[in-house]
Amino acid sequence: MTDVVVIPRATISRLPVYFRVLMELSHMEVSLVSSDELAARSGVSSSQLRKDLSYFGEFGIRGAGYDVGFLLQKIREILGIHREWRLVIAGAGKLGTALARYSGFAQHGLEVAALFDIDPGKQGKMTGKIPVLPMEDLTGFVQEHDIQIGVITVPAQAAQGVADLMVRAGLKGIWNFAPVRIEVPDDVIVQYEDLVVGLLTLSHHLSRRMR
Amino acid sequence: MTDVVVIPRATISRLPVYFRVLMELSHMEVSLVSSDELAARSGVSSSQLRKDLSYFGEFGIRGAGYDVGFLLQKIREILGIHREWRLVIAGAGKLGTALARYSGFAQHGLEVAALFDIDPGKQGKMTGKIPVLPMEDLTGFVQEHDIQIGVITVPAQAAQGVADLMVRAGLKGIWNFAPVRIEVPDDVIVQYEDLVVGLLTLSHHLSRRMR
Repeated sequence: MTDVVVIPRATISRLPVYFRVLMELSHMEVSLVSSDELAARSGVSSSQLRKDLSYFGEFGIRGAGYDVGFLLQKIREILGIHREWRLVIAGAGKLGTALARYSGFAQHGLEVAALFDIDPGKQGKMTGKIPVLPMEDLTGFVQEHDIQIGVITVPAQAAQGVADLMVRAGLKGIWNFAPVRIEVPDDVIVQYEDLVVGLLTLSHHLSRRMR
Repeated sequence: MTDVVVIPRATISRLPVYFRVLMELSHMEVSLVSSDELAARSGVSSSQLRKDLSYFGEFGIRGAGYDVGFLLQKIREILGIHREWRLVIAGAGKLGTALARYSGFAQHGLEVAALFDIDPGKQGKMTGKIPVLPMEDLTGFVQEHDIQIGVITVPAQAAQGVADLMVRAGLKGIWNFAPVRIEVPDDVIVQYEDLVVGLLTLSHHLSRRMR
């Protein structure tokens, strides 16, 4: 019944690490791995690893460890990467283009199909193999190319307008990097990404140590 | 005894939102705010807000709400932004320069002092007011300019070398965007930032809805 389990973000944040380690093991043709080894390679404690994986049912083979291929498949399913997701990015500035070039996405079945910008100077260019298109073409593009997720990297004051455009285009998932809350209908999921949070978390821990 | 409380990342992730809302109220010369209003403006439930703030002791004034100035000061302290932090960024690619230009940092007392890159073609340029310097100057720069935090945006295969350089330079906090574990001494804190995690969290929730 994995579809009634809501997995904590902290656990989800470790799944890509496990996934990457398992992919490496798979490339090395290792088919079974102990929880101790998988934990050590992932940089977490064995108890943390077992707790994280316990959300997804019984994975381990008692006494033999985890089946690498089976575990890879389960993590793929949990993360929704047993299927492909196609994204568009609104905002072809530094952050938008950095995301478009980010090699980690393809590896997880996430494909950036196009960037959109209001600046005619940016339109028509390519970021790698990804075109930069006029913002007004977003709706048509989303509908023609079976896009599910929109990424917002425009300035804060433009974010709500872009979100409205994405909702009208039929996108059901929005990943918002603009440092502002956006209003969307209930059937649209917004994931906020504030780049400052990681740094504030770090400074919080640093300042506790430095007292 | 706030220094023995370890605040959950989920709570910390909401503090910058509260902080931003409180800053707006402060600019509007509002000095008291109810938990309902602060919650609504922050996009969380009142019970979530009260739970988050309860980690930091008794903030509310019964019947009157929260004192905006006092709450701002407490959040500043908790996040370690009652003091300034100075950062250097290793890697002057798209992501490094996007971070250097990110306006959210200055607002939290986080100052990017310089970017470093091994590419002579990038060295000598400016990202806004921030210089791009040769990587071999990092150690001297960190020691001369009282830098506490290093940010890694170089490719995965170069990350450990850069981390070693940062540790030798005396940095005690590293914010790592490279999708790879790095080894550091126990007195150095590493915060991992994997850009794919937010997107995988979103796709996890989307795929549950779309089943």
